[in-house]
Amino acid sequence: MEGVKTERERVVRFAPDGRTSLVETGTTILEASRKAGVSIDAVCGGEGKCGRCKVRPEGMFSAPESSLVSGEEKAAGIVLACEAIVEGDLTVEVLPRSLVGRHQILTKSIEEVQRPLSPWVRKDFLRLPKATVWDNVADLERLWRALGRGGLPMMPLESLRDLPNAIRAGDWQVTVTMSNIGSIDEITRVESGDKSAELLGVAVDIGTTTVVADLVGLLDGAIIATASDYNRQVSRGEDVIARMMFSEDGGSEELTSLARETINSLMSRLVTEGSKVLGRQISDQDIVSLSVAGNTVMTHFFAGLPTKFLRLEPYVPVAYHTGYLKAAELGLKANSAARVLLFPSRAGYVGGDVVADVLSSGMHLSNKLTLLIDVGTNGEIVLGKKDWMVSCSCSAGPAFEGGEVSCGMRAMDGAIDKIRVDDDLSTAYHVLGERTPIGICGSGLIDLVAEMYCRGIIDRKARIQDLQTDRVRLSDSGREYVVERKERMGGTAVSDLVINDADLQNLLRTKAAIYGACSTLLKKMGEDLNAVSSIVIAGGFGYHLDVARAIMIGMFPDVPQEKYRYIGNGSLGGARMALLSAKKREEMNEIFNKMTYLELSVDTDFYTEFSSSLFIPHTDISKFPSAPPESACKEAKS
Amino acid sequence: MEGVKTERERVVRFAPDGRTSLVETGTTILEASRKAGVSIDAVCGGEGKCGRCKVRPEGMFSAPESSLVSGEEKAAGIVLACEAIVEGDLTVEVLPRSLVGRHQILTKSIEEVQRPLSPWVRKDFLRLPKATVWDNVADLERLWRALGRGGLPMMPLESLRDLPNAIRAGDWQVTVTMSNIGSIDEITRVESGDKSAELLGVAVDIGTTTVVADLVGLLDGAIIATASDYNRQVSRGEDVIARMMFSEDGGSEELTSLARETINSLMSRLVTEGSKVLGRQISDQDIVSLSVAGNTVMTHFFAGLPTKFLRLEPYVPVAYHTGYLKAAELGLKANSAARVLLFPSRAGYVGGDVVADVLSSGMHLSNKLTLLIDVGTNGEIVLGKKDWMVSCSCSAGPAFEGGEVSCGMRAMDGAIDKIRVDDDLSTAYHVLGERTPIGICGSGLIDLVAEMYCRGIIDRKARIQDLQTDRVRLSDSGREYVVERKERMGGTAVSDLVINDADLQNLLRTKAAIYGACSTLLKKMGEDLNAVSSIVIAGGFGYHLDVARAIMIGMFPDVPQEKYRYIGNGSLGGARMALLSAKKREEMNEIFNKMTYLELSVDTDFYTEFSSSLFIPHTDISKFPSAPPESACKEAKS
Repeated sequence: MEGVKTERERVVRFAPDGRTSLVETGTTILEASRKAGVSIDAVCGGEGKCGRCKVRPEGMFSAPESSLVSGEEKAAGIVLACEAIVEGDLTVEVLPRSLVGRHQILTKSIEEVQRPLSPWVRKDFLRLPKATVWDNVADLERLWRALGRGGLPMMPLESLRDLPNAIRAGDWQVTVTMSNIGSIDEITRVESGDKSAELLGVAVDIGTTTVVADLVGLLDGAIIATASDYNRQVSRGEDVIARMMFSEDGGSEELTSLARETINSLMSRLVTEGSKVLGRQISDQDIVSLSVAGNTVMTHFFAGLPTKFLRLEPYVPVAYHTGYLKAAELGLKANSAARVLLFPSRAGYVGGDVVADVLSSGMHLSNKLTLLIDVGTNGEIVLGKKDWMVSCSCSAGPAFEGGEVSCGMRAMDGAIDKIRVDDDLSTAYHVLGERTPIGICGSGLIDLVAEMYCRGIIDRKARIQDLQTDRVRLSDSGREYVVERKERMGGTAVSDLVINDADLQNLLRTKAAIYGACSTLLKKMGEDLNAVSSIVIAGGFGYHLDVARAIMIGMFPDVPQEKYRYIGNGSLGGARMALLSAKKREEMNEIFNKMTYLELSVDTDFYTEFSSSLFIPHTDISKFPSAPPESACKEAKS
Repeated sequence: MEGVKTERERVVRFAPDGRTSLVETGTTILEASRKAGVSIDAVCGGEGKCGRCKVRPEGMFSAPESSLVSGEEKAAGIVLACEAIVEGDLTVEVLPRSLVGRHQILTKSIEEVQRPLSPWVRKDFLRLPKATVWDNVADLERLWRALGRGGLPMMPLESLRDLPNAIRAGDWQVTVTMSNIGSIDEITRVESGDKSAELLGVAVDIGTTTVVADLVGLLDGAIIATASDYNRQVSRGEDVIARMMFSEDGGSEELTSLARETINSLMSRLVTEGSKVLGRQISDQDIVSLSVAGNTVMTHFFAGLPTKFLRLEPYVPVAYHTGYLKAAELGLKANSAARVLLFPSRAGYVGGDVVADVLSSGMHLSNKLTLLIDVGTNGEIVLGKKDWMVSCSCSAGPAFEGGEVSCGMRAMDGAIDKIRVDDDLSTAYHVLGERTPIGICGSGLIDLVAEMYCRGIIDRKARIQDLQTDRVRLSDSGREYVVERKERMGGTAVSDLVINDADLQNLLRTKAAIYGACSTLLKKMGEDLNAVSSIVIAGGFGYHLDVARAIMIGMFPDVPQEKYRYIGNGSLGGARMALLSAKKREEMNEIFNKMTYLELSVDTDFYTEFSSSLFIPHTDISKFPSAPPESACKEAKS
């Protein structure tokens, strides 16, 4: 009886966007929000551990006490959506910071692919001789003969079914798309008439947080359209560990579906956008080649592989290489016989995205030493050059992505991405989306730590000092510094925007992990920082980042800034290169074969380096010659 | 509301086996029988054209007049099941000849495969080093390393998913099944512990009428179990033309499902039977290799390929080779990654079954000339030797398989398979299943024609003579000869068993097509019958056939009987060989490449040869030196 409420069902209406869902009593508000299509942030996967899903419900509900809800918030009627139980019809106000909003996603990258292009698909227009009783060879073999090929013809069953109609609809004139990669040499598609002027592929970067896809013209290398979105898995846990646990708890198929749905929705947008750009209607069937890069966990979810032993020590993936799978096997809405190159992972925590980063950076072709740093939800570092490369992963934690920091958020509308602290300890900042601030994203946090250090608000151990100012006060989590007062943050803010001692210790550990990983790699390889000719920063983080300040807090090595180079989304760039160039695909395999992996979690050197980095900028100040004395800080902020 | 009849539903009960179905008024009795699981014969696919589905309903029903129901039958309450409409609860007696009963299916074949055997799958037992943080290579790559192999590891996604558990459940001791064929070199399956003592495959012959499958031990070549059944497509039309038309009329997916269901049901029986024979429980997952041979149309249906252009002139298949597909792609209940070899077709009407026949016969290895004749629903002929082979197909029609002959039936229980006509024109015969006769199968019909000719009941043009005996009388279809009187055929017979002029003309055309095809091939190749050193008879027909009488009516060439050799079900034998031997698989490809095809439908020589053969035994009696004069016939029947 559609549309009619049963006795146990309740209407839950979400503000501000007015979406509603009909749920049974006993459901959590978080579940109700998912049903309504409202994306509430739930870093921990809805387990009441992260305190991100704050909402203000009105109506009948129950919610346990939570230490993650402050007294001030409690007084304002705020509860955790994952713990609040629907008991009657409700109106739920979702706090701005809890809403998964529009994100600043990095889609650009630098790349260099040799001409002529060599995608693994090609098109040939053929005029077939018509079948007669004297020449009634099978359609497939007729095609193969016209292609001038020997041996047995290969064509996946799903495409073979359409072959007879395609041939006859075009009056025996057809365009054949062939795929040729490794041991695969097959007909992917047959179209009626001459369609050889267009050949399309899609490159995808599956990030833990965001997914970006490019529609690429394979004949000219043009990026026809770009689309990006949150990884729909975000609602099932923000980091890979939470999602792997969700997967083991029966959610494995759901995570696979969510990953594929995210990509399919992007591809559908690419098709729409691409049709406009190209000035003619294209369809998902025109996507005949796909290249996908992601970290090892994302790659496993996407391929539907179990992640249990990847999560548990000794962190073993099911496979590094899954080969060139077919779009249909992966549930992708592209040509079903289109081959999908999944970038190989190098280790449990050095995935295909890092291989793609390296490919995109070109460091594997250089005779000079390069250090590549990709700071995303995890930090991955690669050191090396043409002859050798060594990679590692440090569980940097999501502090710079908005996790584990009370005022932290991702680089999306409402996030402070640049900030300065004034003499009177008040702040001036820039907010993404030019609106009132909600929180602070990674680059803003780096700025903030550097500024607080310069202003003497924190000491070298990042501890907030007992200053005689109303900007510094005591809280449940130790001292806290008021970044902005709620009166200045628009009507919905229920409390001041603050950063506390606990937050600062998380940020300190994160920056120490990254720096510690870099110096461990250098030490292991007997290399000196001076020998590093270039430091490549990859990932969405890069464009918002002030390298000088990242050096100032001791996160990145102290080398002249001109040695730093941003490649942006190297994962997507590498995926695109592989679509376009046989040489790049070969290089991809060479990178995989050449790059070794160092497991930091069992490395004592790393612990020493990490501990020494738990200072601003470092225990050993001589490693940061350019770090300004406190007195110089005031100039630095200009 | 399960089990409760709605207002429009009626119970239809089928006799003699008592099965029932619940159908809506307006349903045909044929549909109701399918729902009840009662197999009623419907050669024409239920279009009221063949008159095979005769039933005697009691209760409320309506049925139009049909010229296919005789006055005698009508008086007895007999109607066509495909035209009779259910209007109330019914009891329906299915006439014995309308029931698709237990069939005499040929499962044996002669074969010769060199030792050692070389199936395309092999098993290796491996003790893997356990993963540690210092050696945490991915499971797949660990396996590949232990196999001592280079290059990129290959394993289909569906098996890869189970890999981590298989490895750990066996405490790092595993048995790996590898498939190696052509460009495929991949891991098919990983089992826990040592399972290397057993390796199983299944060989299948998909015939238009029957499907036969063998469970084969790939380590010793043993046929562990055999199962056979009707092709479930039979209910959608008896011959390939009827089925192709049904397919084009929206039935394509149903025919594909029916073919796969038939094979799956056989495999399930093989697993049960195999478990008994081997003394341990096996499962469908143990079937890691499959080989399937069938005619071109059956192969298309099985693979889900459209048959429209195969049916229409110029008879073009979609593909000869479909490659080694995966069991999962074909919907087979075997190990999903098991590869399935589909024997390549050579032409629209010379299928993989004929390639398998040739492989089984060994004629492709001989320096002497061989003529191979496979008489099934169609007739396929191959002439040749080591250096060359030419094949053709003659639309012999289903006369010898029970079609287009009023008293004809397939070689199943109740069929007369041997018959002699006495001096007084009465008959003595053998009935399959040792019961009262229902009709006459192919070998019985050959006997009957030969006997009728010898007794002077028919002349050289197979016309029934106007004899002064109550065994010969006039009917609507010209004269008819009473083979057996209804009184002697058990209680259910409503009419005498007769053969009429129309039947005899069908049989004459069929035998003329086969002989005409043989002599056309010989003529085209400039070969003389004397040069033929061996005539190989393949197909289910063979074992029931009296070669002397087939020669006598001019169906087979008149050469000494010792030159004739039966290989039985060569299609299944060839499929089995391919499972066991790399050399035979290579030979299969060589046969495909070597064998040319002659399209008889546009060949004027064939029409001349065919017309000359429309006599008993032939226009040119000199071609049948051993044909006995009428006087000798009496001795021949002893």
